[in-house]
Amino acid sequence: MAGRKRTSARSAPAVAFQGERGAYSEGAARRLLGRSIQPVPCPTFDGVVAAVERGRARYGLLPIENSLAGSIYRSYDLLLQHRLHIVAEVNYRVRHNLLALPGVRLGDVRRVLSHPVALEQCRAFLRRRRWQVQIAHDTAGSARRIREEGLRDAAAIAGREAARAYRMSVLAEGIEDNPANFTRFLALARRGRPLGRADKTSIVFTLADRAGALFKSLSVFALRDINLAKIESRPIHGQPWEYYFYIDFHGSMAEARSEAAVAHLREITPFVKVLGSYPRARV
Amino acid sequence: MAGRKRTSARSAPAVAFQGERGAYSEGAARRLLGRSIQPVPCPTFDGVVAAVERGRARYGLLPIENSLAGSIYRSYDLLLQHRLHIVAEVNYRVRHNLLALPGVRLGDVRRVLSHPVALEQCRAFLRRRRWQVQIAHDTAGSARRIREEGLRDAAAIAGREAARAYRMSVLAEGIEDNPANFTRFLALARRGRPLGRADKTSIVFTLADRAGALFKSLSVFALRDINLAKIESRPIHGQPWEYYFYIDFHGSMAEARSEAAVAHLREITPFVKVLGSYPRARV
Repeated sequence: MAGRKRTSARSAPAVAFQGERGAYSEGAARRLLGRSIQPVPCPTFDGVVAAVERGRARYGLLPIENSLAGSIYRSYDLLLQHRLHIVAEVNYRVRHNLLALPGVRLGDVRRVLSHPVALEQCRAFLRRRRWQVQIAHDTAGSARRIREEGLRDAAAIAGREAARAYRMSVLAEGIEDNPANFTRFLALARRGRPLGRADKTSIVFTLADRAGALFKSLSVFALRDINLAKIESRPIHGQPWEYYFYIDFHGSMAEARSEAAVAHLREITPFVKVLGSYPRARV
Repeated sequence: MAGRKRTSARSAPAVAFQGERGAYSEGAARRLLGRSIQPVPCPTFDGVVAAVERGRARYGLLPIENSLAGSIYRSYDLLLQHRLHIVAEVNYRVRHNLLALPGVRLGDVRRVLSHPVALEQCRAFLRRRRWQVQIAHDTAGSARRIREEGLRDAAAIAGREAARAYRMSVLAEGIEDNPANFTRFLALARRGRPLGRADKTSIVFTLADRAGALFKSLSVFALRDINLAKIESRPIHGQPWEYYFYIDFHGSMAEARSEAAVAHLREITPFVKVLGSYPRARV
């Protein structure tokens, strides 16, 4: 037993994520990298990137897109500004639960605490109750507060991970209005070695200042039958109404076809950066 | 004088915008539609749309994109969900000012109130001061609070429009870090008559489920030498990782070339909605 523990402690990677212990990001990190990771909670997305850059964590997890809310801009901007590599991705089902201290029953609840987005996503469930609503900075933080302050008239909306972290009971499970609620997370590392067989690549580029520039840029992929999974644009600061384009395509930079497409893109655009090749999430 | 006033009151359109009196949106509305508009402030973007749909306002102003922060998702979603038409657009320079009650001097200020985004955009200016920072729901609202509570140790970060609305002095002007800070607003109306000669069109569509679908969709414009001004994607709820694509292109639906391109797009995609043709902003 002692030997096994030591091995696990040595091999379990430190993983940075945004949020408190028990955040959805921590759940996604464990799903992707194993239950035995060493969690490195960070208050901000910037903190996640810094933890990986400075070696405090081997991997950093950033949410990049939610299937209901859309792209998460800050993450896109950080991918551009820093030299980290995308080495994996995971689609994590966001399942909201109603958590309370053990022994508290549904009838005891008078107020509910959570992040505004979680509260909004559980509107139908909450409409049937006449609870006071209290806004918190994050979902796991609202669970932590109930635990720390011993609030027996309050419940938090948060994930299972938070129930575990703060020893709370689950009063109701899956209370979100729309069950098709997934967040896609990227795992970042200082070295670009993908966590598995890479079959997806993310790049960012800018357009030449000429008519049809976006169309021509996309043609380097279409002409090689390379499928695009996602296209996203972000403003270039200081150049109003000009954009960085982010593209995810099927294929790895280790394949000649992908390499040729990106080389072709470099011929016709002023700036291209490869963010990483990695195994695409299967769910 | 009296006669002139009456004429102006009769012809000045009611214009709905999000925010309190004195919000940047009100400034943009006056720039686009004239100083004598009848302002209809609304607490939310949804409220702006409802005010136009129910006839409480002739026009509604929605911010669609900021040159630093990027696209404003809620506005894109509302364009899809409602039957309003885009009839004009305006690029509005967001110029942050430091406002205080008349007579208050810079040396009297101990705390600053504003919206988090405005505070963030004035980081360099604020770094030099040791003021307490207080978060407010909106920029104009922070000015209103200082006026209503007679706070003589506080300043608000807000626009000139707020200084006028609440009779405040401007202690410092243009305190934003990055002067290339513009917000593009759309004017929406129930009828699709553009406010001027239309030379830009906005549409939204979905992709057929086949390889190269986005590339083929863009080709209907490229093959006709129609330039794209913007492309944006938003998730389709209930269909994770599928998207609505929003495109702005140069040209009006009154032109044969644009009409042919959109007809071609309908041939190859399952859903197309024209959001409006309107004169493009010249700045």
